[in-house]
Amino acid sequence: MNYSNDIILRAAKGEETERVPVWLMRQAGRILPEYRATRAQAGSFKSLLKNPELAAEVTVQPVDILGVDAAILFSDILVIPEALGLQYEMDEGKGPVFPKAIESRNDLGMLSLADVESRLDYVFQTIREIHPRLNQRVPLIGFAGAPWTIFCYMIEGKGSKTFQKAREMTMREPALAKQLLDMITDATIIYLKRQIQEGCAMVQLFDSWAGVLGPSTYAEFSIPYLRKICDAIHEAPITLFGLGASFALEDLTTLNCNTIGVDWHIQPKVARTRIGKDKTIQGNLDPAVLYADVDVIRKETARMLDGFGPNRYIANLGHGLYPDINPNHVKIFIETVKSHQFSHT
Amino acid sequence: MNYSNDIILRAAKGEETERVPVWLMRQAGRILPEYRATRAQAGSFKSLLKNPELAAEVTVQPVDILGVDAAILFSDILVIPEALGLQYEMDEGKGPVFPKAIESRNDLGMLSLADVESRLDYVFQTIREIHPRLNQRVPLIGFAGAPWTIFCYMIEGKGSKTFQKAREMTMREPALAKQLLDMITDATIIYLKRQIQEGCAMVQLFDSWAGVLGPSTYAEFSIPYLRKICDAIHEAPITLFGLGASFALEDLTTLNCNTIGVDWHIQPKVARTRIGKDKTIQGNLDPAVLYADVDVIRKETARMLDGFGPNRYIANLGHGLYPDINPNHVKIFIETVKSHQFSHT
Repeated sequence: MNYSNDIILRAAKGEETERVPVWLMRQAGRILPEYRATRAQAGSFKSLLKNPELAAEVTVQPVDILGVDAAILFSDILVIPEALGLQYEMDEGKGPVFPKAIESRNDLGMLSLADVESRLDYVFQTIREIHPRLNQRVPLIGFAGAPWTIFCYMIEGKGSKTFQKAREMTMREPALAKQLLDMITDATIIYLKRQIQEGCAMVQLFDSWAGVLGPSTYAEFSIPYLRKICDAIHEAPITLFGLGASFALEDLTTLNCNTIGVDWHIQPKVARTRIGKDKTIQGNLDPAVLYADVDVIRKETARMLDGFGPNRYIANLGHGLYPDINPNHVKIFIETVKSHQFSHT
Repeated sequence: MNYSNDIILRAAKGEETERVPVWLMRQAGRILPEYRATRAQAGSFKSLLKNPELAAEVTVQPVDILGVDAAILFSDILVIPEALGLQYEMDEGKGPVFPKAIESRNDLGMLSLADVESRLDYVFQTIREIHPRLNQRVPLIGFAGAPWTIFCYMIEGKGSKTFQKAREMTMREPALAKQLLDMITDATIIYLKRQIQEGCAMVQLFDSWAGVLGPSTYAEFSIPYLRKICDAIHEAPITLFGLGASFALEDLTTLNCNTIGVDWHIQPKVARTRIGKDKTIQGNLDPAVLYADVDVIRKETARMLDGFGPNRYIANLGHGLYPDINPNHVKIFIETVKSHQFSHT
């Protein structure tokens, strides 16, 4: 596909760009009144997710309203457990709940790879609905959860600060944990390949619960599965983002990905040094900075840009947008990135 | 005071020790049937907290049952907001809730330093109840929450994964945030000095929510208050422990403390290199390792010990004990530390 603006793709591939590209994790969401209207129309988060026309609408809203350099598919990382056979409900205010979580080897019998692709048909239909609305203005980013993060939810059955049950299984029954991680990995590869086939120009893996592991457990229970996915996907650039995964940057850098996303717990210059010059970096403004006055937002954004430098870099937050941020503050962040003059270019 | 076993004090002060001392964060707690019995007798967590005799009993239980090298005062970090005038309730299963959180400058009017010491009298009475039970077998550790962590709860009004409201206040009203942090700091100094006066031989500050900040915000909203406390307390060794604070180790190392506690997100050798030789290090076994088979516990504990080395080191977990851990597994951890032979000593 030819895009009017393909700056983000060029940055991901390591080509020089005339300016730094910018988008925001969770840019399609509650901060926009337009999103809240569409969601009200759908009735609930899950109905919105499963309605390809409405999901396509909210995917494109931030491109129209905020002027970001990419759209990201409106979906949820938990569509994968559901496609494997494990149902979940979205409890408004409380987050996802799986009425039946995976507790033992027997429970793996509930899961099957056979129907993953067909059960995710509504997502692929959403992508097809996005194209005419996006009209090749900017690339569409597809995504999935990292296997470790999906595993966490499937074992724990809900969100948690510590995911003790999931970590308990890695300690008590590592072979069983790895069997499930393999299954999630295979489903994710099927899912991402098809997203790309349907027209996603880039894909991102979100390892939202990387931070409950340590260096050696992350190397054992997350990295090998990310590696398998990166080695299987050649069709589009891949971004890996782990929240709380600063300790694993060197390991992530060994993987076959184009871009590594970093959270706000690391200084840009330190991230650049540790990741090196062969990967693009994405991140990492503290999402809370967008609560500040506009001059603080401009100053902190400029500091971030100067820290990462003009090349191999995609500007973003260090995690998803908080839902009560003023959309005008988001616009100031985006404008600051777009108009920034680097001192030494 | 003279202790039968003062190995932990000597390690904190940087003196040579015949073996590595060991205790566990949250060692007095739900893992012990003896604790659960005492708590049932008290009725609730807060009744237990406010009952000096029963609180003293659970403080000493792990010394009797597990053979740790220190007792830690059974209390709660949220006694400080309460002593300042902000009531909280402990909602079983959900954690602490403040019916009225701090939302504006006006709300600071609810708080006062004047009664802090007298309102905490039940804690000091607990310490006095502990002495005859502990009988100078091992030192007693006192503690408080770090000002940043206490601030988080006072603004947010409850636990949170992201503490957005607290971070929003640092961004929107930094001067107000600092005024409250100063007040918490002053209360904490009063509290810790009196704990030591009553006979605590060491004190630890818990910065449980360090990890919601980044390097520059931690340097602005946590470090200066930790520094003020460390500079004010000369009477006993101080340990600083920040969860998710790996990014701040260099800053923490500049403070007037004896020991820095590290979580399980860092390799022991990396921690040692970054912290240097002038501080004792405490930590950092992944608490989930205690779910594993005993041979895995032994192996991982030995790996940790060899990583930190025999000097300036206090063995502990990288965070508090999970309540459903088998007490026998805790004993194996402790025995492994006590009997470990270092290869190059």
